[in-house]
Amino acid sequence: MRAAVLRGGVLQAEERPAPRPVPGEAVIDVLLAGVCETDLQLAAGYMGFQGVPGHEFVGRIAVAPDAPARVGELVVGEINAACGACATCTGGLPRHCARRTVLGILGRDGAFAEQLALPLANLHAVPPGMALDRAVFVEPVAAAFEIPSQVEVSGRRVLVLGAGRLGALCARVLRLCGADVTVAGRRPEPLALLAADGVPTLVAAAPDRSFDVVVDATGSPQGFATACRWARPRGTVVLKTTCAGDAPMNLAPVVIDELTVVGSRCGPFGPAIATLASGGLAPETTIGGRFSLERIADAFAYARAPSDPARRKALIEIVLA
Amino acid sequence: MRAAVLRGGVLQAEERPAPRPVPGEAVIDVLLAGVCETDLQLAAGYMGFQGVPGHEFVGRIAVAPDAPARVGELVVGEINAACGACATCTGGLPRHCARRTVLGILGRDGAFAEQLALPLANLHAVPPGMALDRAVFVEPVAAAFEIPSQVEVSGRRVLVLGAGRLGALCARVLRLCGADVTVAGRRPEPLALLAADGVPTLVAAAPDRSFDVVVDATGSPQGFATACRWARPRGTVVLKTTCAGDAPMNLAPVVIDELTVVGSRCGPFGPAIATLASGGLAPETTIGGRFSLERIADAFAYARAPSDPARRKALIEIVLA
Repeated sequence: MRAAVLRGGVLQAEERPAPRPVPGEAVIDVLLAGVCETDLQLAAGYMGFQGVPGHEFVGRIAVAPDAPARVGELVVGEINAACGACATCTGGLPRHCARRTVLGILGRDGAFAEQLALPLANLHAVPPGMALDRAVFVEPVAAAFEIPSQVEVSGRRVLVLGAGRLGALCARVLRLCGADVTVAGRRPEPLALLAADGVPTLVAAAPDRSFDVVVDATGSPQGFATACRWARPRGTVVLKTTCAGDAPMNLAPVVIDELTVVGSRCGPFGPAIATLASGGLAPETTIGGRFSLERIADAFAYARAPSDPARRKALIEIVLA
Repeated sequence: MRAAVLRGGVLQAEERPAPRPVPGEAVIDVLLAGVCETDLQLAAGYMGFQGVPGHEFVGRIAVAPDAPARVGELVVGEINAACGACATCTGGLPRHCARRTVLGILGRDGAFAEQLALPLANLHAVPPGMALDRAVFVEPVAAAFEIPSQVEVSGRRVLVLGAGRLGALCARVLRLCGADVTVAGRRPEPLALLAADGVPTLVAAAPDRSFDVVVDATGSPQGFATACRWARPRGTVVLKTTCAGDAPMNLAPVVIDELTVVGSRCGPFGPAIATLASGGLAPETTIGGRFSLERIADAFAYARAPSDPARRKALIEIVLA
């Protein structure tokens, strides 16, 4: 099959053996895959990943020896493949299994390919009538829904730092969950999209320590210090940013202001699918570019510096032979 | 009066005007003051502090125009002097008042002097019969009691990183609060003191991600990364360490393991005084050196590198003229 392979910092399409189904897993024909900030970080060396990146996808089950009735099903997929047997898994935290692989991130080839493999238990049916352009956002919307599963946001003043792909989704999801959300960003265009939907926005304002919860979705190692300056004493900073490499930091403000910092990663697919199906979110409006697998480098370049800053999402479209 | 003054990184005893009581405050004759890791950090540039450091003390009220009956009272003191009027103060968090001064740390001369001033509301009577050598530990014991006021520890596996002054107090306090406490440190002597009291200890073990709560009391910017490696997924890291200056860090493990990081600073004096009065803690056994104000530099040198590593506490004894 064709696949985009990251090796030694270089990303290019090449021939690669198709994944074979192991017991309990299915092979999926990928239809559409999204480029995420984490993919850009992987290309910059994050996790030391070598292989096929990509973890946001919608596809169709092609091979499923343990569930032949599911072949042909249109699915999205949770990206953590857990062992199911360890204390962490049986304790209810399979997304944190120490032996897990993670689609396109850790020990498992991902979605920038004609096919991928995932455990059947990870696959959720796309509701009838949901467009592929919307379904491809289930994974990042689930990541946004992880925040209200960890931190009480209803009725609280929440600042989302970063109006990029994930920041905008977090802002919209937290608003749906009853938070009083403001978004701060550097570029006016994505903020304008949010403002048009009634979300208060800030550009380059002086931090005032007035927010109960601050979400760092900047994708930058500098975002954390900024988040700490916006949070009230004893407030909460939610970290969504992961970066390749160390950056100079000082954690003294966390101690002095007795902040609570909550790391937040992958989230629950159920509320994400339900919200997208109901039209509560329509993130397909942020799609700015569509690229073939052969043009994966162009897709990453677009995601890094979108020509339309209000439409930052780059998609890889797989046209099966 | 004589006072130890920190100016441009140099700490030395000199003449200084005695503090005058402002409305609501008292002037206290200092009897005994403890040297803390924060003092060493201040000398290294933390907070940019210039003036008289020192915030752990026991003393006697000398002047109190608003409470003449309290003159002569033996007291310890909470170190945050709040405005009492702002939303943070009236909201119940005076220790986080944005306009606060902090004894020997921020905008207020401290305890390495013959006299200091604090609001009357900050002063707690030393219980009858409590030795000065024990009373001088009320402030750091209160800081240890801040942890169980923020994080559930009873019945949970807690690792304290660092068996220094604060680490040892945290370990003992958390144990009294019902935690299953282990202490990890680099030096065998302070660990041996804890082990003799039945606290399990670790030296240079490989992190195993098995602890519900990890307390970073290392005093080192490297402690945080180590703490993250010992905490279980979704576990809690309590930060007690504040350092001068930035250090290279990567917060990705916080996100990946969805850790909760809780900054922890000053704590409640009530449980600290009660526990010390009851003999539940006897930290005076860790006193390793006593120095006059004139020998403040020797006291700091002792605190940095105690000749008896099991007795790391340096005290400043004020002998009033």
